[in-house]
Amino acid sequence: MIAKIYITFKDGVLDPQGKAVHHALKDLGYNEVSGIQMGKYLELTMDGVSREEAEIRVTEMCEKLFANTVIESYRFTIEPEE
Amino acid sequence: MIAKIYITFKDGVLDPQGKAVHHALKDLGYNEVSGIQMGKYLELTMDGVSREEAEIRVTEMCEKLFANTVIESYRFTIEPEE
Repeated sequence: MIAKIYITFKDGVLDPQGKAVHHALKDLGYNEVSGIQMGKYLELTMDGVSREEAEIRVTEMCEKLFANTVIESYRFTIEPEE
Repeated sequence: MIAKIYITFKDGVLDPQGKAVHHALKDLGYNEVSGIQMGKYLELTMDGVSREEAEIRVTEMCEKLFANTVIESYRFTIEPEE
């Protein structure tokens, strides 16, 4: 199974990296961009687990290790390996 | 339009952050994880552009600003705003 995990700041949490990138885009003339959220992306390859097991395990990993759930939210998808 | 951009290292490029996370997962007992790719995730809100224009502009932004195309590859999706 392949788990694709997306971690972003919760609404209202200051995102200085996103602000800096937004500023750089404005300087480069990309004025159509009105907002940016920056985050982390993880792709896990998991062996010998069913989709249901993978969902439980990935939720645990996100809560314990990947996301700081006070300020970050996460979502993920589980897909069979190609 | 909402552009969702995923930037990851190309195959064969050393990913020390991914390695560290993989090691931490093993320590926590998640032995089913056989591989990790870590990367960046960006969500851009774009105003007043069509899907075609957004695709062209986002490709430019990725090439110029977001990705180091020597070692990183990018992909993105463009979706209408909800």
